[in-house]
Order: sequence, then structure tokens, then C-alpha cells
Amino acid sequence: LDGEAMQAARQRQARLTKPAGSLGELEELSVRMAGLAASCPPPVLAPAALAIFAADHGVHAQEVTPWPQAVTTQMVANFLAGGAAVNAFARQAGVGVTIVDVGVLSDLDPADGLILAKVRNGTADMSEEPAMSREEAVAAVETGIGVAGRLIDEGARILLTGDMGIANTTASAALISVFTGRDAGMVTGYGTGIDAATHLRKIEVIKRALALHEPSAEDPIGALSTVGGLEHAALAGFVLGAAARRVPVILDGVTAVAAALAAQALAPLSREAMIAGHRSVEPGATVALAKLDLAPLLEFGMRLGEGTGAVLAYPVVASAVRVLHEMATFDSAGVTEK
Amino acid sequence: LDGEAMQAARQRQARLTKPAGSLGELEELSVRMAGLAASCPPPVLAPAALAIFAADHGVHAQEVTPWPQAVTTQMVANFLAGGAAVNAFARQAGVGVTIVDVGVLSDLDPADGLILAKVRNGTADMSEEPAMSREEAVAAVETGIGVAGRLIDEGARILLTGDMGIANTTASAALISVFTGRDAGMVTGYGTGIDAATHLRKIEVIKRALALHEPSAEDPIGALSTVGGLEHAALAGFVLGAAARRVPVILDGVTAVAAALAAQALAPLSREAMIAGHRSVEPGATVALAKLDLAPLLEFGMRLGEGTGAVLAYPVVASAVRVLHEMATFDSAGVTEK
Repeated sequence: LDGEAMQAARQRQARLTKPAGSLGELEELSVRMAGLAASCPPPVLAPAALAIFAADHGVHAQEVTPWPQAVTTQMVANFLAGGAAVNAFARQAGVGVTIVDVGVLSDLDPADGLILAKVRNGTADMSEEPAMSREEAVAAVETGIGVAGRLIDEGARILLTGDMGIANTTASAALISVFTGRDAGMVTGYGTGIDAATHLRKIEVIKRALALHEPSAEDPIGALSTVGGLEHAALAGFVLGAAARRVPVILDGVTAVAAALAAQALAPLSREAMIAGHRSVEPGATVALAKLDLAPLLEFGMRLGEGTGAVLAYPVVASAVRVLHEMATFDSAGVTEK
Repeated sequence: LDGEAMQAARQRQARLTKPAGSLGELEELSVRMAGLAASCPPPVLAPAALAIFAADHGVHAQEVTPWPQAVTTQMVANFLAGGAAVNAFARQAGVGVTIVDVGVLSDLDPADGLILAKVRNGTADMSEEPAMSREEAVAAVETGIGVAGRLIDEGARILLTGDMGIANTTASAALISVFTGRDAGMVTGYGTGIDAATHLRKIEVIKRALALHEPSAEDPIGALSTVGGLEHAALAGFVLGAAARRVPVILDGVTAVAAALAAQALAPLSREAMIAGHRSVEPGATVALAKLDLAPLLEFGMRLGEGTGAVLAYPVVASAVRVLHEMATFDSAGVTEK
């Protein structure tokens, strides 16, 4: 973060036609955006681009979710047709949506808005073998970096994370356990809605995978390859790619923050580009946000993923930056100060 | 609220391509919007119209704020020029802005976007005499009802409350004390930023006014006329006007919720049309929201007024309703259910 730009943003906030500090957290957010961009005012945060990274999970074989694996592919089609929740939210917020196949089980046909970048057809079952090789994890990270760069090159001034992958909260919980040191039982939730027996099985499966591979926070690629998902690796790269270009990235829910922990482990400064869109009800999300030292903007008891929480938060972030661009100062508006 | 439409909305939420309940509070909000409109899906909540009711306060003479009274008029000019925080937020959210002079001290020139509906040139000092007559309070309420009706007739499908009036948090706290029965000291905050001595004086002034007039929650017009403001009375009418037309209204901060308490006292069912946009840091706001039994959507530590919190919340509310309109069902999208 650029200290000079942040100082300029703070001074500008104090000259705008409002009581000092009256916009609360939005003022500090605008200051951080100035620091990230190293300019005051920072760029207007439009257009905004959401990338939904889709992939499948071999650990599905352990019956960690009642949803069939085919739903990942079906939901990609639903995203492309504009019928998912995130599509409705994105239309309201004016956010562009791109889908990235980084590891869906089935082979997908080309389509507008779909980037075909499959690293492999789903991961292996982490409870029996590494989810993927180190080389595949690196390839997925590089895919994410590439997608971030491409969207920024196409004009995006802010990126948003999205994800789709049946069983991916299992990998998210495993990664959060690795990077925060918390027990799997503390960071594993009910995902899209499972019963208590499935929840217990899910925790046991994660513990078995962690015991088998002994992944370490000091080796983020090792963690991603053994207990992660292809979309987690790609999302980690996406965050790194945004941060490297000094473009802010709004994190969605538990999958995004699990990936963000890997990004932070790979490059600690990448944290400065992250904005926590919302607090998912998944317990791992709260643990991960604390580790990232990020306060979520929204809290609606949501647990859908897709990028829904990031998209809902986008107008707030854009509004915070607009203040630095569009508001009059006391002098320019002829408003008397107290 | 229409029970049949709410039941239809609940059933529709269960058929949409997402895990049941995964959109958390937004699902219940969409159900309430269906109940309010008595149709499922309820109307798309666009266009959205914000009305900023501006007025001055005779209690300013008691030095309850360091801001000069002229700032009310200056800020109206700033709103009309598009240079205030709420203008920046409204551009982001796609919300139309109308200013209503319901009691600014100075006489204002006609302007585009400004409704001249002055009931009187500012209130009298509530600590020495009634802020206004009962007739004037009724006239201001009727002005608010009329503005709501006019905006709805012009096409608005959701209304947002805004306010501007130097010293209006004093009247807000007095009204909240009346309608909740809480001591003035418990509901009086630091407004736009006052020092501790001014805060104590503000509480004493409110207590003196309440002791002088003995306003009662059973006589909302009496409360508005003795210790209220012209913008509070107009906002109460604005809420009533929205509710009577079954149009939702997003409440902003402490001035809005104080007025909403008066609206609820006048017509209890009007509460069903209210949405709490955010939680202001003013302590009275939290007390009033509890009395209204409304959970705020956003909480950013804001204390600006103008409608800023309502405008930030608008995309969330609109998104919640879009879900019922735009999302595919499991059947229509060919997505397998668990």
C-alpha cells in the first residue's frame, strides 16, 4: 500500500461535504483503495468482472454431500444461460460474469463467456491420494493468474471471485485447517445443507486426508495439491494476479477465503488487495477471515457461493471509491464548516 | 401482508436452482416483498426513488450542534448540484433523487429535482415552545404522503428515505424517547460529531422539552408537533404513503427510524412496508429498530443521514426480488436435485 496516496485520501475525506468520519468503514476502505492503486483518487472501480472457477472433486466419492457430481456441469450451463442467483445479482450490480472450467469432470463445449482451461477432469479423492500433482496445482494457479490478467487487460478495474464445484466446501475446510492450524471439526460446516451424519463423515474424511498427506502452511502448493481443489488453486492465482496488478479483488465465501489463505501464504502482500465481500455461515469462513485480518462488508446468513456475496458487496466498494471522485469539498460547494 | 403470495414465494424459493435457504435473509426479504405486493413474484423494484426531506430546527438556538444552520440550505444546493455523498451513492445504485423543502429556514429558489413544499420556515425551539402547531405537523405529514404518491405515480416501485436538517438528531432522539419510553440519555448520540459537553447539553435540552410538553406515544401528531421536526413529520407521511400503496420503503438512519416510529403509531400496519437499510451509530437508531422489530441490512458505522444508508442497501433489496423473477428452477434449467 502506498502511504502517500493513503495520506492524500485521508486528507481528501476530511475536505468533503460531510462530517469527518461519518461514512465509517467506507472511508477507511476508500483510503485502502487509494493505497492499493498508489493514487488518490484511486481509479473508479468499473467495469467489474466476476470469474466463476468451476471444478469437480474426487472426494465426492466419500459421500460428503447429497448433491450428484453432475450438478457442477449443469450449473455451468445455468450460469451461461443467466439463470443462477449470481446472474440475477450481477445484472443488478452491473458486474460482468465469466465462467472458467479449470477442472470440471465432464468435457464442456465452447460457449460465449466460458473460458476452457481445464487442468484435469476433476481431482482425485484426497482421502486416498493427493487431489492432484504439484504440477497440476501450479498449472491451476497460473490459470487463475492468467484469467485475472486477461480480465484486467479487457478493462476490469475490480475483480470478484466466484466458484462452483460440488463437494468443494470439503476441500475449503481442509485448506482452512492447514493454513490456520485449527482442527477440522472447528472449520467444517454444513455446506449446501447436509445432515448431521454427513457432517460427521465430512469431518472424518478431512481428518483422514490431513493425516495422510500432512500438508503444511509453509508449502502452499503442497497443501493445494494434496487437499485442495482445482478451483481453489485457480482462485489463489486469481487473487495473486489481481494483487500483482494493484487491482482490488472482492472475495466471496468459504471457497474464496480458503483460496485467499493460500494466496497469502504464497505472497503475503497479496492480502492488501483483498476485500471480504460477506461472511458466509460456514464456520471456516469466519476462521479464515480472522487469519486474513479482513472484516466482511455484508452478513446475510448466505451459504451459496457462485460469487453471490462478492457481487452483492460490489456496489458498496464502488460507492466508497466514488466518494473520493465525485463529492464536492466544503470550498467547492460553498458549504460552511463547523 | 398477503399470506397466499408469501406462501407462493416460499414455494418458488424452494424450486430455484440453489440449495434451500442458501440466500439467508434475502430469501425472507423476498417473501415479505411478495406479501407486501400481494403477488408472487412481486414487482421488480425499479425505478427506485429517494426523497430527501429538508428542514431547520429552532432548537439549534440551544447550541446542540457546532454546525451553523445555514448548512441545511447549502447542502440542499449541494444535493441539487450532485456533489453530496448521497448523490455519489445514488449514481452507483441507479436511484433517482428528489429534494423536498418541507421547512428550510431560508426561502429556496425553484430548481429541477426540488419540490417546494415548505410548511413553515424552520421549527420553533422545542425547549421553550412546541416545535410547530398540530396543524403544521399534519400538513407536513400530508406533504410526505403526497410526495410518496407522486413518486409512485411517476413510476417508482420502491421508495427510500433521506433527510437533511442541522440539529435534526436532537428531534430524532426526543421522538425516539417518546415512542420507546427510553430515557433521553439512552437514545441521544453524538450526531454529526459533537464534544462531550455538547452531548450533555443536548440531552438536557431534550429532557427539558419532554418535561415541558409531556408528549405521548398515544398522540403521534402531538409528539411530532411538540418535539419533532418538519422533516420527521413529512417522513412519517412518506412511509405511510408508501405503505398505503403497498410499495416498500427503505429507511435510512436515526431520523428515518424516529419518523418510522411515528408512522407506526399512526398506522401499525405501515411497519410491514419498512425495510431497515442500515444501522446508524446513533444509539437511538438501535433502540428504534428494536421497537420496530426490524433488522438492518447493513452496518458500516455510518452516521451521515441524507439517505446514504438506504441507497447503499437498495441493490441488496432489488437483488432479493430479482431472484424470484430471474432465477431458473431445477426443472427449467435441467439441474438435478439432491
